[in-house]
Amino acid sequence: MKSFDELITFIRKEVNRELKQISLPKSPTYLYDPIRYTINGNGKRFRPILVHLAGRANNVDPESIMKIALSVELLHNFTLIHDDIMDNDDYRHGQKAIHSKWDISTAILAGDGIYALAQILLSGLSERSDIICHYFNSTILEICEGQAMDKEFENNLSVNEKEYLDMIEKKTGSLLGACSAIPAILMNTDKMIIDQLKYFGRIIGNGFQIHDDLLEIYGDSKNMGKSLGSDIFEGKQTLLVIKARDKYNTQWEKLIQNKNDINFLDDLRQFFLSTGIKSETEKIAESFFNSARDTLIKIDSINTDELLKFVNLIENRKY
Amino acid sequence: MKSFDELITFIRKEVNRELKQISLPKSPTYLYDPIRYTINGNGKRFRPILVHLAGRANNVDPESIMKIALSVELLHNFTLIHDDIMDNDDYRHGQKAIHSKWDISTAILAGDGIYALAQILLSGLSERSDIICHYFNSTILEICEGQAMDKEFENNLSVNEKEYLDMIEKKTGSLLGACSAIPAILMNTDKMIIDQLKYFGRIIGNGFQIHDDLLEIYGDSKNMGKSLGSDIFEGKQTLLVIKARDKYNTQWEKLIQNKNDINFLDDLRQFFLSTGIKSETEKIAESFFNSARDTLIKIDSINTDELLKFVNLIENRKY
Repeated sequence: MKSFDELITFIRKEVNRELKQISLPKSPTYLYDPIRYTINGNGKRFRPILVHLAGRANNVDPESIMKIALSVELLHNFTLIHDDIMDNDDYRHGQKAIHSKWDISTAILAGDGIYALAQILLSGLSERSDIICHYFNSTILEICEGQAMDKEFENNLSVNEKEYLDMIEKKTGSLLGACSAIPAILMNTDKMIIDQLKYFGRIIGNGFQIHDDLLEIYGDSKNMGKSLGSDIFEGKQTLLVIKARDKYNTQWEKLIQNKNDINFLDDLRQFFLSTGIKSETEKIAESFFNSARDTLIKIDSINTDELLKFVNLIENRKY
Repeated sequence: MKSFDELITFIRKEVNRELKQISLPKSPTYLYDPIRYTINGNGKRFRPILVHLAGRANNVDPESIMKIALSVELLHNFTLIHDDIMDNDDYRHGQKAIHSKWDISTAILAGDGIYALAQILLSGLSERSDIICHYFNSTILEICEGQAMDKEFENNLSVNEKEYLDMIEKKTGSLLGACSAIPAILMNTDKMIIDQLKYFGRIIGNGFQIHDDLLEIYGDSKNMGKSLGSDIFEGKQTLLVIKARDKYNTQWEKLIQNKNDINFLDDLRQFFLSTGIKSETEKIAESFFNSARDTLIKIDSINTDELLKFVNLIENRKY
């Protein structure tokens, strides 16, 4: 029997192999070259891994699991391509974002094409495809709402922690909720379990995003595949920023006035550490991961062992 | 009994009324304000009208017809919003395009949101929703291919008529094919009839697009809701341009060197008229409309009278 780590490595490899095997026409290259470039990129594949683990817990057949897994990964890539344009992020997964390697028009169209591909893959799953298709598109609309809030919050100095948490639950939590719940929906599982799995995915998403905000400052830029501190540079309101504004306003104002400084990242790191904002934020992420675990433990009709280990995997990631 | 014109006016009014009644949250306004702005705009609604007529011919219940009709209209608006960014078109349907009224990020996200809304509407149609969802997304992918070809063709002086016709069949024909065929698919009609309806829609789409290229030059800018000649200004390769390049290369080169001239549009009009390119192009559009009529006449198991009249409506439009 494989260890959990070996299982994850195996799933990630299979997902990458299947992604590369998605049959795409050669032309028009304007559309398919950037799509191929994205699909062959280095995503961490956390979402399709969650689909696989939730699928195994719900005894879904491997072929359907893989279809759902590829579909959510493509959907995720569609949102990244468009978000990177909106957020001026030039690098993604260690390679140039499409809009900076090609141009904005190419990136818009590649995103649209990947969205369509994701749904073409998803159709034909079973007689419950229609419900899944509805849920899938409602999730996309919720992600759009989250991205809209994120844009509204930029440089808005009145955003509070509650608003921030609502935003990340839409932007990040909703898709992880779908990854966790779709396999159970496919199996027509009891509604209560579907809701618990959805909730589990959503809060693990919140923990994931807060963790991501921390990695944006304290991670390793090589592993992260992007430049650090760019969110704060762009005026994004993360938990760290909101806490800094609320409790150390004068110091914070002074700090971000020097955001073009070569030492800005080091200064940020030192500031969040010495004020205790780093550890406070870590505790909030931890509380989401703990709630996710508690939610799983309450589900007794399916085996949630692998999903529990997935929480640890996400919690301990370094990039 | 209503005359055909009254029927069209009635359907257009009903579609506009239903579009306005689509329930949208108030916030985030970053997402929903531009979506509302688009939905309340002045589209000609040819696509939902075609759905209604094809639905009536196939005895589809009115509620399902309207769902499909709204869904294709939203889908069409999604493509327009993103195309207008890519093509630098600042006006659409007589009002500012989203990217020029707001900005590019807002327009990207509004398009994505409308795409999701279109599919949320489409799900829950019947047990055949899954097939329709697959066809719908394949159509979107084909539209993306058409738009990609259109972008590849910009300022590409080797594009020929065949390539141009392939491009517009993907970009415009595919969605009109879907409008015409989806009601029959919903009713599980004989595959041959579905294919004939699909083909009918696709070629009427070709005629429609060639007609549109002519209206871009010879239309009335107020009625068209956009500035005329902009496609040629942007280097788009339409049938008119391809014919001009092929047969009157020297004259054409000279003409477009003066594209910043105040008289450029008048000069274009005069050139296409005197060379006979205008009437040649009109004949090609006419041949597509005639083929569309021939296709309908061959279908004897459904009543195609209203669809035949729809061909005339499209053929005689002035904007």
